[in-house]
Amino acid sequence: MSIGPAPEDVAPLARYRRAADYLAAAMIFLRDNVLLEEPLRPDHLKPRLLGHWGTCPGITLVYAGLDRLIGRTGADVLLVTGPGHGAPANHANLWLEGAHERFDPALTRDRAGLTELVRRFSWPGGFPSHLSPEVPGVIHEGGELGYALATAYGAALDAPDRIVACLVGDGEAETGPTAAAWHSTKYLDPATSGAVLPIVHGNGWKIASPTQTGVMSDDELTALYRGYGHHPIIVYAEIDYTEGAVADERLGVAMDEAYDRITGIQRQARSGRRPERPAWPVIVLRTRKGWGLPAELGGSPLEGTFHAHQVPMEDVAEDPEQLAALEAWLRSYRPEELFDDGRPVPAVLAVCPPEERRMGTNPAAVGGDLRRPLDLPEIADFAQEVGTPGTVTAGATAVLASWLAEVFRRTETTRDFRIVCPDELESNKLTAVLEATDRAFSWPVPGSAEHLDPAGRVMEVLSEHDCQGWLQGYLLTGRHGLFPCYEAFVSIVDGMVNQYAKFLKLSREVPWRTPVSALNYLLTSEGWRQEHNGYSHQGPGFINTMLTKKAETTAVYLPPDANTLLAVMRTCLASTDRINLVVAGKNPAVQWLSLSDAVAHCAAGASVWAWASHPAAVQERADVVLACAGGVPTVETLAATEMLRRDAPELRMRVVNVVDLVSLRTPQTHPHGLSEDDFRALFGDDLPVVFDFHGYPSAVHQLLHGRPDPGRFHVRGYVEEGTTTTPYDLLASNGVTRHDLAIAVLQRARGWASAGGDLADRYARQRDDILTHVRRTGQDPAEITDWTWGLR
Amino acid sequence: MSIGPAPEDVAPLARYRRAADYLAAAMIFLRDNVLLEEPLRPDHLKPRLLGHWGTCPGITLVYAGLDRLIGRTGADVLLVTGPGHGAPANHANLWLEGAHERFDPALTRDRAGLTELVRRFSWPGGFPSHLSPEVPGVIHEGGELGYALATAYGAALDAPDRIVACLVGDGEAETGPTAAAWHSTKYLDPATSGAVLPIVHGNGWKIASPTQTGVMSDDELTALYRGYGHHPIIVYAEIDYTEGAVADERLGVAMDEAYDRITGIQRQARSGRRPERPAWPVIVLRTRKGWGLPAELGGSPLEGTFHAHQVPMEDVAEDPEQLAALEAWLRSYRPEELFDDGRPVPAVLAVCPPEERRMGTNPAAVGGDLRRPLDLPEIADFAQEVGTPGTVTAGATAVLASWLAEVFRRTETTRDFRIVCPDELESNKLTAVLEATDRAFSWPVPGSAEHLDPAGRVMEVLSEHDCQGWLQGYLLTGRHGLFPCYEAFVSIVDGMVNQYAKFLKLSREVPWRTPVSALNYLLTSEGWRQEHNGYSHQGPGFINTMLTKKAETTAVYLPPDANTLLAVMRTCLASTDRINLVVAGKNPAVQWLSLSDAVAHCAAGASVWAWASHPAAVQERADVVLACAGGVPTVETLAATEMLRRDAPELRMRVVNVVDLVSLRTPQTHPHGLSEDDFRALFGDDLPVVFDFHGYPSAVHQLLHGRPDPGRFHVRGYVEEGTTTTPYDLLASNGVTRHDLAIAVLQRARGWASAGGDLADRYARQRDDILTHVRRTGQDPAEITDWTWGLR
Repeated sequence: MSIGPAPEDVAPLARYRRAADYLAAAMIFLRDNVLLEEPLRPDHLKPRLLGHWGTCPGITLVYAGLDRLIGRTGADVLLVTGPGHGAPANHANLWLEGAHERFDPALTRDRAGLTELVRRFSWPGGFPSHLSPEVPGVIHEGGELGYALATAYGAALDAPDRIVACLVGDGEAETGPTAAAWHSTKYLDPATSGAVLPIVHGNGWKIASPTQTGVMSDDELTALYRGYGHHPIIVYAEIDYTEGAVADERLGVAMDEAYDRITGIQRQARSGRRPERPAWPVIVLRTRKGWGLPAELGGSPLEGTFHAHQVPMEDVAEDPEQLAALEAWLRSYRPEELFDDGRPVPAVLAVCPPEERRMGTNPAAVGGDLRRPLDLPEIADFAQEVGTPGTVTAGATAVLASWLAEVFRRTETTRDFRIVCPDELESNKLTAVLEATDRAFSWPVPGSAEHLDPAGRVMEVLSEHDCQGWLQGYLLTGRHGLFPCYEAFVSIVDGMVNQYAKFLKLSREVPWRTPVSALNYLLTSEGWRQEHNGYSHQGPGFINTMLTKKAETTAVYLPPDANTLLAVMRTCLASTDRINLVVAGKNPAVQWLSLSDAVAHCAAGASVWAWASHPAAVQERADVVLACAGGVPTVETLAATEMLRRDAPELRMRVVNVVDLVSLRTPQTHPHGLSEDDFRALFGDDLPVVFDFHGYPSAVHQLLHGRPDPGRFHVRGYVEEGTTTTPYDLLASNGVTRHDLAIAVLQRARGWASAGGDLADRYARQRDDILTHVRRTGQDPAEITDWTWGLR
Repeated sequence: MSIGPAPEDVAPLARYRRAADYLAAAMIFLRDNVLLEEPLRPDHLKPRLLGHWGTCPGITLVYAGLDRLIGRTGADVLLVTGPGHGAPANHANLWLEGAHERFDPALTRDRAGLTELVRRFSWPGGFPSHLSPEVPGVIHEGGELGYALATAYGAALDAPDRIVACLVGDGEAETGPTAAAWHSTKYLDPATSGAVLPIVHGNGWKIASPTQTGVMSDDELTALYRGYGHHPIIVYAEIDYTEGAVADERLGVAMDEAYDRITGIQRQARSGRRPERPAWPVIVLRTRKGWGLPAELGGSPLEGTFHAHQVPMEDVAEDPEQLAALEAWLRSYRPEELFDDGRPVPAVLAVCPPEERRMGTNPAAVGGDLRRPLDLPEIADFAQEVGTPGTVTAGATAVLASWLAEVFRRTETTRDFRIVCPDELESNKLTAVLEATDRAFSWPVPGSAEHLDPAGRVMEVLSEHDCQGWLQGYLLTGRHGLFPCYEAFVSIVDGMVNQYAKFLKLSREVPWRTPVSALNYLLTSEGWRQEHNGYSHQGPGFINTMLTKKAETTAVYLPPDANTLLAVMRTCLASTDRINLVVAGKNPAVQWLSLSDAVAHCAAGASVWAWASHPAAVQERADVVLACAGGVPTVETLAATEMLRRDAPELRMRVVNVVDLVSLRTPQTHPHGLSEDDFRALFGDDLPVVFDFHGYPSAVHQLLHGRPDPGRFHVRGYVEEGTTTTPYDLLASNGVTRHDLAIAVLQRARGWASAGGDLADRYARQRDDILTHVRRTGQDPAEITDWTWGLR
């Protein structure tokens, strides 16, 4: 096949773009006279002008170019648009190709639909000014910049016939997450996965300054992308708009070259000879910002400068000169040639690919339609035997890993489950999954490397941003996944998860967006057992971040042992349209619940552990409640309980474990919230509660709002004290050893304030003795490290 | 000067490294027999082996190389060590050069000091296993990876004689923040700032996988760094440890070349001919991971593989074979040649630079010693005239900008104040600072660019990570700064600020760390006025993140108008060892307080606004408290107050404004916490409170723990509802319009539940009428947009 568009194909592209550019501009400015059938008057304008023009013509240039490529090749192309504020361009193209019409009968390709489209943009109750889940074909919002590229790679994984075209804005290209994502090809298997075609939209300007891409020389850009492992193709489209067809022609040549390179790499890899360092193409498109605008406005330069970024003529309503400039600009697209009574003329529509290949209706953008529920293995086959609570030990994540390995085995042909992880799979004791799959890696590796294979489905890279972006793209295109991470470092993706939670929240409100699989975090290497790595590795703040999200889209689980982790993870991997945060330990620890008890506990969200409570306190009047949430807090709370059972047998303690953290919230504020009666059955109305929490106490304080007398909850947790030391010393510095808890219980239990004084003093002395031992020997005493719930 | 070390200089370097490597290894393993004067026995070992060996020998190779360079040139070199878990290497070098001794008399360079050093590492109460503020010469922790490079550039800014050597681990090199930071040279002025010498420590492996740097070919690496704008120098040091001097020789050649290149660029720039695209050097060092270890252990490969990452021999206490291997390995350094009764022999010490040039005692690492307080302009000269509250309008950030411009003018010679900002200075209405300085930019720019100059002190880049890292390095080396940011996107640096807060918390506990200037955020373009950009731009979660930090290191301010913003910012720019979060509006808004009232309000933290309250409710019994925090909530609350004054004149309302958010906390939990009496004077003991909060209601809920009956606080705020719409509609979707607030007040005020019913219904109808108007016209009605506190 020859490279580049035939001469006769170029003029239609430029004409098509005139239609799309006109529509995009009209969306920003007009609410009436949308086809400019009469002279433009101020009352035709929207009263508030909201929108970003600068990047729009470039987006349409690429959209049209991809349409041509699709038409020529029949390729299955999904578009990820980084500069989400160029939404008017996307809308214009989506309307022209009929994608809008398909999802919304009000957006027909006629006068009524065109009018509705133009009016609805940036209008209350209409389309937002940025891309969002309401927009067909969209799997990435682009408000917070930087994540388009990783998302695109995630969408391409395990979809061998898909090409994900990814428009990267040159503002966005300055972000760290984008910079890191260029290395994604080192983890992409050309045989079993599809391809990403990145197109850097270099219009040279951000809001008010030149971009890095804009000031870099061609030599620098070429070197940079070659260094990233790509084959850069620079396209010069900084030409006059009236010569626009030249841009279409040049971009067409580049796209054909890129396509041939992509299919060449794939052909080679799929014939069994994977190329050693496949240099996938990247197109660097140099355009004029706000292409097509007048060169200047009121004596100031406009087209090709940062002044074109947002609404390029802000005073059109008041300034007749600007109004005239706007009208002249809009008329320069000659809408009368492009629309017939509001219907795009056939010559315009001819550019759009056949219906089943249009980017706006690509099924991959509605992942829920493609999603098949995982065939999850029975957790019973992997559960720990737990007889008497607290008498056996196991590492929760290691138990989970065997189950996850089976998930990998069952998805070997469907290839719709992946784990992403920032180089911590082994450290997090999940190594067993490598019995079922390998780490994905496509570049040549040293002989001493282990468990690496291009087709592996564990993706380890030292970039939480890559992990998050890949997983988002994977899930939104209908697949499943898990993100194990060091607890303290997952906050690196706080910004990304903020945006993803918003995407999910809105998706749930869009009728045609069917549910996608939950985004599941497994936070381990939790701070309490980062006594060796020290203070920087201790940080449970991601829980607080999750608690700011819309209740329907989030859940936070703190399974205290292996069987509860299995039960929780089964729920998570089956759930949809949610972000599940699971915090679980990797170290060998005391086990509490049989599988059936664990399942019941998880279903309840929080339960009284009767076997650990004073028999009189389980349902009746207790002196005090000992509550706990999280693995280490559960161990310490139960150890405190044991001490107190032995030393103060009259003390009527009720032990409550919370596994589903948001069950503490009222049922009015979270669907998991315990009913008033259930909450009262656990915590009473006015009982003193000593609550040992895995994370910051503030997280629990905020959840208790609306519950009876929250002031009675004395919450302990991580209070930002830590260093490299022993586990007990780390607990002590935060006031949450078993001794601290027992003392707190004695001080607060009804009727024990003075009766418990001597005992509390004794516990304080024991605590000090242990700390002295720690300082002297460098380790915790055996009574702490080897403790099990032995007294029963 | 000739390039590279003379042959006679190389052997001493290798010998010096043997001493440092021995010490680092000893730190990980030994607690007795630290000089191996007797055969190694299990009881000489630490009971818990904690530490990372893999990167240590490479760190020392670089440390020694820099020492030689310093000796040759007299350069002022500060070291930023990215792989903070290589702390044993840093400790060894710091001890050898005497930096440890200078800060801690127990760490003398003799038997006692050496024993103490070895024992203290990774020991409870001793040195953590990672770099931390307790370690001399350190301005970067390196637990959460990715921030060394940006920090280094920040330290080099405005310090023309300083070279910041920056060791970038090849794990860290995979992170987005590191990738973005390579472009920092485009913002660095060779005339007025110093230089960074990045050294990529490519040992090829992360915890369990090859690194990107490790698998990239020399061609790829060369292209990548050239693309970033650097001049890469690859050093092959993958040689046998016994041939180590060859590595010293090669690294020496590279360092000399790099140094000459750095000084050449600087000379040229300082002679008035700034080079157009200065290609600063970067050294890429290829070493063997865990260099110097045995090639294998128990049949498994060790040196040069990921198995060398952490403690390379884990079972030494139990496995006699491993113990023998450890002893043989340690003895391979021949400690008896290197230490004389624990004192480093003169031939070893000869490598260390003269005392005033040692990296561990570089004054820049103790920024508080260098810091000069800013000569802050009088805020009175910039304040808004505010007579009757609520009758004039102004944009708070624009007012602040004039004051900040004056700060820039007053620091023109000291050059110790900078603003970092992700391309939002203009958007955030801070443009007036560009009257006093320019945007820093060192690459050639198009003619239509405005306000760009290499020596400018505003740094705009579309990378929050760059901004944060630059500012951290700048502050920790004794300077001042401000980080204005879109509120919703500052969460991008959540992880970085977590770590910086930890660094500050620990620094405050280190006696020789004198206070550094506060890190000041100015969050503007707040969500309530991102009605145009939409849902992705609405997110006040950074407040919640800040509230998880140690109370002493954080403050959160929500100034409701321009004068309070001035008063708050004056406090912030004068404060030390803290992170100040300031949230303020950029849009023209109603002004409330005269400057003197604003100053008093800020000093109090929260006050009753008597002029807005029912006279009987100011001190005496009120029916209800209307509390507010934040600019938009203050406007809506006062508007609600006005409606209620008019329509329910008997309603005894007390209006409270909170400017210092953490004043809500108890004085036991935050130094800014209001006393019990002061809190009661505002909110009573049991008064109903309707609190309109700028951010998530959960932030206020958690702060109220420990206050009387927190359940009576009905907190409204952002509940994650939003899109592109009008400001009123955005408020309505979150239930916080003036009408919603007035209704909530009527429902809760004592004795008004039924009396206020009709009025509440009327307000609900008004609200619905306005929303109908909004949907129809696309804008808020004038009664909302033009509202001032007019009825008085």
